[in-house]
Amino acid sequence: MKPLTDTETTLAELKTQVLAFARERDWEQFHAPKNLSMALAAEAGELMEHFLWADPAASRNIVRDPARRTKIEEELADVVIYALEFANVAGIDVAAVIEAKMAANAKKYPVEKAKGRSEKYTEL
Amino acid sequence: MKPLTDTETTLAELKTQVLAFARERDWEQFHAPKNLSMALAAEAGELMEHFLWADPAASRNIVRDPARRTKIEEELADVVIYALEFANVAGIDVAAVIEAKMAANAKKYPVEKAKGRSEKYTEL
Amino acid sequence: MKPLTDTETTLAELKTQVLAFARERDWEQFHAPKNLSMALAAEAGELMEHFLWADPAASRNIVRDPARRTKIEEELADVVIYALEFANVAGIDVAAVIEAKMAANAKKYPVEKAKGRSEKYTEL
Amino acid sequence: MKPLTDTETTLAELKTQVLAFARERDWEQFHAPKNLSMALAAEAGELMEHFLWADPAASRNIVRDPARRTKIEEELADVVIYALEFANVAGIDVAAVIEAKMAANAKKYPVEKAKGRSEKYTEL
Repeated sequence: MKPLTDTETTLAELKTQVLAFARERDWEQFHAPKNLSMALAAEAGELMEHFLWADPAASRNIVRDPARRTKIEEELADVVIYALEFANVAGIDVAAVIEAKMAANAKKYPVEKAKGRSEKYTEL
Repeated sequence: MKPLTDTETTLAELKTQVLAFARERDWEQFHAPKNLSMALAAEAGELMEHFLWADPAASRNIVRDPARRTKIEEELADVVIYALEFANVAGIDVAAVIEAKMAANAKKYPVEKAKGRSEKYTEL
Repeated sequence: MKPLTDTETTLAELKTQVLAFARERDWEQFHAPKNLSMALAAEAGELMEHFLWADPAASRNIVRDPARRTKIEEELADVVIYALEFANVAGIDVAAVIEAKMAANAKKYPVEKAKGRSEKYTEL
Repeated sequence: MKPLTDTETTLAELKTQVLAFARERDWEQFHAPKNLSMALAAEAGELMEHFLWADPAASRNIVRDPARRTKIEEELADVVIYALEFANVAGIDVAAVIEAKMAANAKKYPVEKAKGRSEKYTEL
């Protein structure tokens, strides 16, 4: 079987794999949205731990450091797995809600106002 | 333009859109892995807030409640947007690392041992 | 030296100990509010990990389980240590801001409206 | 009544106030450790949001900015309130577990090895 890649894998394909993994183990009973949101936040916390004391610029090197990179990839995988399982359980189309959110963000952050600025839209 | 759907959208297509949004606004300077991991965790926190005091069973209804659902979809979108932008910045193939992580999880949680149990693999 | 207890220890005494620990190690350079807020959130994530798949009622037993309790105490200690160090660095009087926040909460959640209800004040 | 200050307030006094607030509102039913750990992590996420795109050095100014400071104080208050209520519910003596954790940390991070270094103890 060919390994998965972002170029050839749809969101739906990944969601199906994540759901199958849970279903095989009879884990859907545990996968309430509340629990999945906690697991997602906990994994996001583990991802952050790699960067706690580094400056942002230095964090760009940390992700390239082979000794760290594999762990970082695993934490990111965990985050996305729980996000996709949340979408499975809640019946959310991830691509659709991202498209909608980015359209809303484009209004809040028009290019001419937001360019090169990190302020929140309420402060632009 | 046809709206995006999980069935027809690849991870790479979503990643490209997220990157283009940041690039247009000259925001790549802010998108260090450290900062993106914080933003991701903060959004995961906002997603959790919808379920703080509900039992897990009740949280399954909360995601179906139209008054809540739109906000929940937006928080999930934010989470995945930051995860994909992290992947962009770190040069991570999300589908590949999820496939690898799920293969590792399958070893830690073999069906016959993990079926119907929520314990950590170290306690199975 | 007598061990510390909540009954006899002031917030100021704990803050002083936390600060001395950092200072001895020349760690104040790393203890920017940004970094401390990340460390705090990451530790809060670790605390959550003990309860991911349990129902709230069951989580009341988990904290009494001797095998888990020590770890849980350590995670809570880490959370409060980072919160106090944040207060040190930002020059915040914790007791004063808690008193102010509880006074504000009492207005948002008057007893007669909030009694026995878990809704957010905007929904009461 | 004199306002509370860190110098004159013990942990036990603050814990009592936090518990009384919950009890008056019949909220102890919602305050399972699982739920409190989520609320704590969500508030920690809100605290982080003030610093997402700033460099650590700049975050030292953000906490001094009057326009931001009040919000930051409130988020920190929320974090500590939930931590203390967690301690109430779990029957944890916060000062005692912090003292124990700092003693353990002192062994992991002896001054002569850890001075001026931000690496994890496993990498020192």
